[in-house]
Amino acid sequence: MSGMTVGFVGLGAMGQGMAANLVKAGHTVRVWNRSPEPVAAMVARGALAADGLADVFAADAVVSMLANDTAVERLLLDPALLEAATAGTHVNMATVSVALAERAEALHAEYGIGYVAAPVLGRPPVAEAGELNILAAGSAESLAAVEPLFAAMGRRVWHFGERPGQANTAKISTNFLLACAIESMAEACSLAEANGVRPTDLIEMLSGTLFPGPVYSGYGSMVAERRYEPAGFKLPLGLKDVDLALSAGAAARVPLPFGSVLRDAFLDALAHGDGEKDWAAVAAVARRRAGLPE
Amino acid sequence: MSGMTVGFVGLGAMGQGMAANLVKAGHTVRVWNRSPEPVAAMVARGALAADGLADVFAADAVVSMLANDTAVERLLLDPALLEAATAGTHVNMATVSVALAERAEALHAEYGIGYVAAPVLGRPPVAEAGELNILAAGSAESLAAVEPLFAAMGRRVWHFGERPGQANTAKISTNFLLACAIESMAEACSLAEANGVRPTDLIEMLSGTLFPGPVYSGYGSMVAERRYEPAGFKLPLGLKDVDLALSAGAAARVPLPFGSVLRDAFLDALAHGDGEKDWAAVAAVARRRAGLPE
Amino acid sequence: MSGMTVGFVGLGAMGQGMAANLVKAGHTVRVWNRSPEPVAAMVARGALAADGLADVFAADAVVSMLANDTAVERLLLDPALLEAATAGTHVNMATVSVALAERAEALHAEYGIGYVAAPVLGRPPVAEAGELNILAAGSAESLAAVEPLFAAMGRRVWHFGERPGQANTAKISTNFLLACAIESMAEACSLAEANGVRPTDLIEMLSGTLFPGPVYSGYGSMVAERRYEPAGFKLPLGLKDVDLALSAGAAARVPLPFGSVLRDAFLDALAHGDGEKDWAAVAAVARRRAGLPE
Amino acid sequence: MSGMTVGFVGLGAMGQGMAANLVKAGHTVRVWNRSPEPVAAMVARGALAADGLADVFAADAVVSMLANDTAVERLLLDPALLEAATAGTHVNMATVSVALAERAEALHAEYGIGYVAAPVLGRPPVAEAGELNILAAGSAESLAAVEPLFAAMGRRVWHFGERPGQANTAKISTNFLLACAIESMAEACSLAEANGVRPTDLIEMLSGTLFPGPVYSGYGSMVAERRYEPAGFKLPLGLKDVDLALSAGAAARVPLPFGSVLRDAFLDALAHGDGEKDWAAVAAVARRRAGLPE
Repeated sequence: MSGMTVGFVGLGAMGQGMAANLVKAGHTVRVWNRSPEPVAAMVARGALAADGLADVFAADAVVSMLANDTAVERLLLDPALLEAATAGTHVNMATVSVALAERAEALHAEYGIGYVAAPVLGRPPVAEAGELNILAAGSAESLAAVEPLFAAMGRRVWHFGERPGQANTAKISTNFLLACAIESMAEACSLAEANGVRPTDLIEMLSGTLFPGPVYSGYGSMVAERRYEPAGFKLPLGLKDVDLALSAGAAARVPLPFGSVLRDAFLDALAHGDGEKDWAAVAAVARRRAGLPE
Repeated sequence: MSGMTVGFVGLGAMGQGMAANLVKAGHTVRVWNRSPEPVAAMVARGALAADGLADVFAADAVVSMLANDTAVERLLLDPALLEAATAGTHVNMATVSVALAERAEALHAEYGIGYVAAPVLGRPPVAEAGELNILAAGSAESLAAVEPLFAAMGRRVWHFGERPGQANTAKISTNFLLACAIESMAEACSLAEANGVRPTDLIEMLSGTLFPGPVYSGYGSMVAERRYEPAGFKLPLGLKDVDLALSAGAAARVPLPFGSVLRDAFLDALAHGDGEKDWAAVAAVARRRAGLPE
Repeated sequence: MSGMTVGFVGLGAMGQGMAANLVKAGHTVRVWNRSPEPVAAMVARGALAADGLADVFAADAVVSMLANDTAVERLLLDPALLEAATAGTHVNMATVSVALAERAEALHAEYGIGYVAAPVLGRPPVAEAGELNILAAGSAESLAAVEPLFAAMGRRVWHFGERPGQANTAKISTNFLLACAIESMAEACSLAEANGVRPTDLIEMLSGTLFPGPVYSGYGSMVAERRYEPAGFKLPLGLKDVDLALSAGAAARVPLPFGSVLRDAFLDALAHGDGEKDWAAVAAVARRRAGLPE
Repeated sequence: MSGMTVGFVGLGAMGQGMAANLVKAGHTVRVWNRSPEPVAAMVARGALAADGLADVFAADAVVSMLANDTAVERLLLDPALLEAATAGTHVNMATVSVALAERAEALHAEYGIGYVAAPVLGRPPVAEAGELNILAAGSAESLAAVEPLFAAMGRRVWHFGERPGQANTAKISTNFLLACAIESMAEACSLAEANGVRPTDLIEMLSGTLFPGPVYSGYGSMVAERRYEPAGFKLPLGLKDVDLALSAGAAARVPLPFGSVLRDAFLDALAHGDGEKDWAAVAAVARRRAGLPE
């Protein structure tokens, strides 16, 4: 099979690894980024520098991996851009709100472009390795069109339905569960320590018994050892994700009491200057509540 | 090595499996239970029927596996019983409060008996298979004395320190994390469903990616499928465990906001008649809050 | 002193009473409203119909009383309108966000118009009687300019500072306290009833002892009698106010745990179809949590 | 009408004022207290020193005003004492649990003694002035028997039913509302201050408008001025009262989300060493959460 021509927008740490894997798989990839440095880096890895966003959208498909709703709205939900586009499908792989997905779906439909939401699980090294888990939703036709791209970037695609917002909901729910796990361990470790149990002993036992897997051992260690730097995922991004869950909840009238506790805890952390730390630093809030030393 | 003589109190579903493994390992096990039927069952499996609690405490070591603090206090924290005892060590393997552990430790010390707290992780089939995870704390000497018993009952011993209450703290923290995981998934599944995502799809993806292991797949399925019966662990026991965490927290001045949400959710479930269901039925509360059909 | 010419935007139930009092006090009042009926009603009471918003802003001062942030942004934060305006001062008496107040203050300053925030306490009959409590903030000069208008509309002006947002903060904090009082009584009445105490007895005692005043007796009776209709203030508006508090809190990194509980409770109420009822209907959520009959 | 003979147990700051008013009203009052000093003080004011608790219960009626459940259980729920008693009625005016009221009611009934629960609203100066609000429940006959005593001690009696526990429920609900009001103001003042509004300005406006009465002005000032000493009512007593509400809620399956937030906030305050301060010091927790200076 000959490769596709793919426009790629958003060369952050995640985007670079993803675009590189599209190149490796034999696709012709035209990349665009707000700042020029990552473009040069990608050109060195075999991509072409797009001549503006219109050039990105003059491809078989567009993949975007932007930071948040605001960036997507400002750059991509542009009627002029979409009207001129020849791309058949736009795959938005960023973690954005359900509301944005719904707006984007409608707007793309208006201009005859398929819109797929495909947020991913995995950090930059996983993106680089082409081993992302891809949570996808969109029409069967659009999904089929971008299946070769998914194959290049991910280890598995998880399907959630025909409406793009479903994939965003799944991603938001996953991040919500991550935040819940971190706060749970933060409270448990404070409880343990204040009652004379070493948090590291607790976490070692937990991840060796009921809670295997990367979340409880990885975040558990960070919480137990109070190791919040370097940040793998910064605290304000964690608050953003909790807010995405709360917003999706509010729109559908779903109270999320754990989500509310999380929001208050993240605000508390930010009020104490932990905005540059990993979101595991929400554990410092649990310690402070209990009067445990920082 | 020749076996020990072991007194065993408390032949519930867990206790029977545990006592049977002590018998199999070659120990002489004298069992006692409030109701007589399980005693007969254990005698059929090679144990001896103890002639009252005093007889249980006339052994090398005593293992107890009673339902809760009240049962332990009433039956075992009896000065007359302890004064007459010849047992060198008492291993309390039940999930009880930190406060009880502290009282028991002091009282046993008064009568020269070693006291070990060794609550376990695992359901009855795991106890029967001798594959329990044992969370243990007590003096080095006492722990060494009962090591052969642990070897017969468990797959691994996790050590938490020299004060028995440390093991109870670890167990209470573990159960707290279980309850948090259930509530987290309950909220996430309500959020997902109200936004058009099938909860079973969500749980399948989660347990196939970030959250492997028995908790997220097992309880996740129960939550996603609203399958709360038959109860593996009844809701009021779940509330008891949350209350143990809150009490241990209060004693050490550790606020547990997730714990507070859990307590309210379990009360809500009980107020709606779900006391005979599995504690996963707390998910029905999350659904009700969101107006989702039962 | 001869009267001022006043442009008035927003003739809802509150605005009509307020504008009428400006007319009575001898001011020349030019009114504008999105729908025409209230304009006719006000003309019958002595006001003049403005010929569009530009005409409203061709006055000594402008008073606006619109429904929410969106209406203010769309109608009044219009550079063309403000550029052409001859009004020296704009008094925004609506309950809007702190963020909007800050944007409005900056934009008005750009065009040399004083901006005063002056949200009010009181329902329509109080507005009609000219007995509102006015919470005001703005520059001393701007406040002095509109003092005669305040005198016509209110019983007292409470000053909060020179930055308009301060008055909005005070109003938002007040509404937050109202919502807290309602939820507090809702929980207390459920606790009382489930323990055999008539909620009406409880509320009668409370308002006759520690909690005099309109809030505990008025909302208390509604809660105790489960009388949520007719709505004096609809539930979605209550949620809007709680969200204003949470947003002002998030912007300044102030966690509000009671606010978070309120948000969840209001969402629960909306999920159960109580959107047309008074916000006192949040008490139905407290009853439902406890399994008390509707 | 000639006076009654009254046994009085518990001469704390409240009890002294109450007993003195019984003396003033012409009753013969035999007082007992664990420590002797207050007895001497009351004798100087016209009371008689009782010769032990049996002597207290050899009266027409007994009034008790002890610190908590534990004191009542240890001193008064004594079968030997009640069996020998000639008193027709025992009025327990302390703030105790609903569960204790139920046990006490049953035990007194067994010995043919009427049991009335009559907790009060008011601080020591109010008790001294005979101006307490008395929340009463018990059989009509028992209430009638002690009516002259209420007349001497209180300004008004509020009736809640025939089961003593009803009055305790009403008192517990009232204290719960007080705690809610304090936390509400704590959050509102933090919100205000972080957004540039002086908390004292906010509280002055609130108590001059929607929230008149002693709670919002009194506690409001303490919160706004961060004046937590001297303590009128110490923080651990506040936590005790919140726990009474939560326990009464748990027994009747009534979740109290505000109560849960309160409990966590009081624990946080105690973890930070504020146990000797007034319960208004829970406001320091709200400030700390927001990173505001102590």
